Amino acid sequence: MKVAYYLDILKPHMPSLDLVARKLMEIEGMKNVRIKVDELDQKTASLHISVEGNDISLETVTEVLSSMNCALHSVDEVIYEHKE
Amino acid sequence: MKVAYYLDILKPHMPSLDLVARKLMEIEGMKNVRIKVDELDQKTASLHISVEGNDISLETVTEVLSSMNCALHSVDEVIYEHKE
Amino acid sequence: MKVAYYLDILKPHMPSLDLVARKLMEIEGMKNVRIKVDELDQKTASLHISVEGNDISLETVTEVLSSMNCALHSVDEVIYEHKE
Amino acid sequence: MKVAYYLDILKPHMPSLDLVARKLMEIEGMKNVRIKVDELDQKTASLHISVEGNDISLETVTEVLSSMNCALHSVDEVIYEHKE
Amino acid sequence: MKVAYYLDILKPHMPSLDLVARKLMEIEGMKNVRIKVDELDQKTASLHISVEGNDISLETVTEVLSSMNCALHSVDEVIYEHKE
Amino acid sequence: MKVAYYLDILKPHMPSLDLVARKLMEIEGMKNVRIKVDELDQKTASLHISVEGNDISLETVTEVLSSMNCALHSVDEVIYEHKE
Amino acid sequence: MKVAYYLDILKPHMPSLDLVARKLMEIEGMKNVRIKVDELDQKTASLHISVEGNDISLETVTEVLSSMNCALHSVDEVIYEHKE
Repeated sequence: MKVAYYLDILKPHMPSLDLVARKLMEIEGMKNVRIKVDELDQKTASLHISVEGNDISLETVTEVLSSMNCALHSVDEVIYEHKE
Repeated sequence: MKVAYYLDILKPHMPSLDLVARKLMEIEGMKNVRIKVDELDQKTASLHISVEGNDISLETVTEVLSSMNCALHSVDEVIYEHKE
Repeated sequence: MKVAYYLDILKPHMPSLDLVARKLMEIEGMKNVRIKVDELDQKTASLHISVEGNDISLETVTEVLSSMNCALHSVDEVIYEHKE
Repeated sequence: MKVAYYLDILKPHMPSLDLVARKLMEIEGMKNVRIKVDELDQKTASLHISVEGNDISLETVTEVLSSMNCALHSVDEVIYEHKE
Repeated sequence: MKVAYYLDILKPHMPSLDLVARKLMEIEGMKNVRIKVDELDQKTASLHISVEGNDISLETVTEVLSSMNCALHSVDEVIYEHKE
Repeated sequence: MKVAYYLDILKPHMPSLDLVARKLMEIEGMKNVRIKVDELDQKTASLHISVEGNDISLETVTEVLSSMNCALHSVDEVIYEHKE
Repeated sequence: MKVAYYLDILKPHMPSLDLVARKLMEIEGMKNVRIKVDELDQKTASLHISVEGNDISLETVTEVLSSMNCALHSVDEVIYEHKE
């Protein structure tokens, strides 16, 4: 099953955007990760993250994000699709 | 027959968006489910849900939504298509 | 000949959107039906209906709509195309 | 040669949109006809008509429109294309 | 070499749009001609003309337009492309 | 390597747009040239020029433009792409 | 792994846009580089740079930019994709 999540995330200045993306790519089944900076504050960055993969779960995604000190602010969209 | 519904739904904070989507995917013939958060209130979330599948029925979809404590607010669009 | 009509319709609350769509799909040659809710009033709903099929006629479409208590408000667009 | 015309037309309430479109489709070489209602007045309707076909001529199109009591208000666009 | 020109033209009421387009189509190498009416004044019409062809020249295009009593107001865009 | 430049150019009334485009097309490797008129002043025209080709260089492009009495006002965008 | 970065950069007037782009193209795995001028000040230019390639790293990209006297102002977007 193809799964995609659109998430709003609060990230401290470290780790870097690049490192967060690379860690998310290591999740089993992950196909692509896209991180866009929405707003930069003094100590944090608001990010729009979209992840897409085969049978990925929101738990695994948020666990990886937590381990990178990123807080899940909200889940904006969820897409599921049966592969033909 | 390909059928698609665009629905407005009121969901309490639990169950999660993810769980609602997964339950809808279990419906016979369902091909994809897309849930977008429209507005978040203290106790509820307004959702735009689009479901698409082969010979799915609105009754089954709303039954599954009810069983997840989601109230159908309105049906915005209905699409039917004969497969070639 | 491929024929498509874009219609504005006034529908009482019953029958349901879904039932109107299913009835229109039963018309000989009909390929797809799309119904979008434009405005909801206390007793009626204004609908944009698009129907597309092979050699369907406006009479048959409006007859089916009448039999469902739907009033044809206006014909917004008519498209005819000779199949290659 | 592929030819397309975009025309503004003034039509009395009768004949119907549907009949005008069907008559235009009978022109030799006509491939598709699209009629969109722009404005409805008490006695007339302003229409955007686009016709496309092989070696159709503006004279034939306007003759058919005249025979249906439709007045050509203006020619908005003319497209010619040599078939490969 | 594929060449396209986008021209602004001032045309008296006669000859007709249709005739101007047909004359331009007779130019050696011309592939398509598109004429859009921008503004209609009492005695003239402002037109956007786009012509596209193989090795057509601006001189030939403007000569044909002059012979039809059309004045070249401005050249808005010029596109050249080597055919693969 | 595919290279594209988007340039802002100031051109005196002569030479013509058409001649400038033809000269740019003579550059080795040039694939297409697109010149759009941005503003017409009494003595000059501001142009948006986009050129695309294989291994073309900005020097050659600006040299050709200089030889046509066109002044390079600014380089707006540069695109490089390795051919697959 | 396909990687793309969207960067905001501050560049002194020299080296030229063209040279910066060519240097970035020399990075191992780089597929395309696109530089757009956002704002021109007296001594500096604000640039939007997008780079895309196979297994390119942000470190290498910023090193090359530093060696060209360009300062990385911000990373706006990061995209990773597993090749099929």
